[in-house]
Parts: sequence; structure tokens; C-alpha cells
Amino acid sequence: MPHIDLPKEYPGVRSLFVFRPETSGPLNALVQTLLHDPHPTMSQGERELIAAYVSRLNSCKYCSSAHGAIAKYHLDNNAALVASVMNDPTTAPISNKLKTLLKIASHVQKGGLHVTTDDISAAKKEGATDIEIHDTVLIAATFCLFNRYVDGLATWAPDDDAIYDKIGKQRAEEGYFTAPFKVR
Amino acid sequence: MPHIDLPKEYPGVRSLFVFRPETSGPLNALVQTLLHDPHPTMSQGERELIAAYVSRLNSCKYCSSAHGAIAKYHLDNNAALVASVMNDPTTAPISNKLKTLLKIASHVQKGGLHVTTDDISAAKKEGATDIEIHDTVLIAATFCLFNRYVDGLATWAPDDDAIYDKIGKQRAEEGYFTAPFKVR
Repeated sequence: MPHIDLPKEYPGVRSLFVFRPETSGPLNALVQTLLHDPHPTMSQGERELIAAYVSRLNSCKYCSSAHGAIAKYHLDNNAALVASVMNDPTTAPISNKLKTLLKIASHVQKGGLHVTTDDISAAKKEGATDIEIHDTVLIAATFCLFNRYVDGLATWAPDDDAIYDKIGKQRAEEGYFTAPFKVR
Repeated sequence: MPHIDLPKEYPGVRSLFVFRPETSGPLNALVQTLLHDPHPTMSQGERELIAAYVSRLNSCKYCSSAHGAIAKYHLDNNAALVASVMNDPTTAPISNKLKTLLKIASHVQKGGLHVTTDDISAAKKEGATDIEIHDTVLIAATFCLFNRYVDGLATWAPDDDAIYDKIGKQRAEEGYFTAPFKVR
């Protein structure tokens, strides 16, 4: 049960956005810019994988399921690819550059001071640009916010994968600003 | 030295805002709403104390110094009060309600799942509203973002307290949208 009185028909962060619209605007604008808007070099699928992976490291069921589903939608519905990244990016069928970026993200998840010059050198050696490194760090940091927000207030995370698939389709197609659908 | 090529005349998060203006807008709007705009019940000083305290727990020198200075400015320049909260909120000369909210913030810093129903009950017993609990969790989560962003990219944190006092005065008076001053 949520720690505060939230609207029951929306799960996860969406119940919080309805409860406190004042902060929902900036938060949705942040993820829209980081994950959905056009990017010089990183695909929507790659950016959503970073969000989902960090959420998994933070054991946030709602965010890892929702962003895993959004990533899957962007990546030709390849559930096996998303699962392999969530389980172990070092053995997943992704580029070496994305592997180094996910390693940086995993260190951001522990804390900013855990990111090392070796992490950065490895990414640059694989061709990562300053913008890619910046955005990886900010996506990882942003999901350290969302995961704490969603679980720190004990929001409701559905068990039904079909709900996350519906969320994944909606957010992948529409971005982050459109109204959520009612889940119950 | 920062991990990416940042403008050298601005410290901390301000160098990142200049590097990537696309994400600076939503991030500044978020802290403006959470920390500076009028609030039904929480003062600007109380909200800045939560931000500074979480930044201290994350060992983020730039954010804890800057938001400590902003809090001090809002709290009649009471440096001793700010220092006592940073060192140990349980013995600081603050309300019991704020003590329970800072305890919630300290658990959010560890991770959202660390917040317990006992933490919430204690805050409600001291009169905390749902909005106050929500905003405490979101302020704490937001600084888990900023601390990781600032240190994950190894931005420059000045050693000179006079610089943080100047930042404190500017942000307390002007809010978060105005252009930063050049530090070097």
C-alpha cells in the first residue's frame, strides 16, 4: 500500500504525477529530452536500455518493467535482447561501446564518485563522445531519482506483464507527455 | 579534472547546464518548483536543508556546500544551525517534524525500498502531511540525481567558502533560472 493517499487507478510514477502535477511537468520534460527526443547518435532503444538496466540494479520493479517494455518496443520487440542486457550487459549481443556506457551507468548507480577515469577511457576508446558519456551519466542519475521516488513512496507495481507491454507501446509511440491510461 | 570537456569558468552542475542546455531547462524547473517556489507549509530553508543533508550523505562537496549556503541564507545566516543539521539532525535545534522528514530523506538516500512504514508513521504522528512526505521523498531523490550527475562527471568543486556564499545569496534571492556568475 502506498505511504500516502494516491489515485488508485494509475501504477508507479503515474500515480505520483497525478498526485503532484507541479513536479510532473519538469520530470516528464526531463525523460522526454533524455529518452525520447531525437539524439545526435544514441537510439531510443539504447537510451531506454540504460534506464531499464539502472532500474534493475536499484531493484525497482515498476521502472525496470516499464522501461524494459519501452526498450523492447523500440528494439523490434526483441525480448531476449532486453533480458540479456538486464541480466549481464558484458555478455549481451550489443556493441562494445554500449557495454562501456552501461558499465559507467552501473557505477553511477552506486554513486557519482564510483565512476573512474578508467571507465571513461574505456568508453572513449570504443568511440563514445562527450555527449554520449554525459547523457549516459544523466540517464543513470535520473533513474536513481525515479526509482527512489517510486519505491520511497511505495507506489503500486502491477504483476501483469501485459500492462507493461501496453505502457511500453504507449510511451515508445507517444513519448512522455500524454495522459496515462487507467489500469484499474 | 572533469571526465568530459566542460566550460572552465563555472563550477559543479552549472558547468553541465552550459554544456547541455537541453536538459538544464527541466532540471532547473524541477529544483525551482521543489525548493524555491511558494509551498503550502514548508519554508525554503527547510527544503534546502533536506537537499544539503542528502548531498552530504552522498559526499557531494559541490551540492552540499552550495545548498548548505542557500539554506543558511534563508535561515537568517545561521551557520551553526545548518552545520548541526548536516552533522546530526537528531540533535539539531529543529522541529520534531523536520527530524522525522530528514530521517525519511536519509532512507531515500540509501534506496527507495529502505523507507519503512514506521518512518512514515513517525512523520505523520508529528503532523506531517502527505504533500510534505511526498516533497521530502522527491527532494531527497532529486539530490541523489544531482549528486551523481555532478560527481559522476567529475565537475569542479571550489574550495573557497566565499564562492558558495555568493552562490547561496544568488540562488536564495533569484531562484534557479538566472544565469550563473563566472567563478574563474
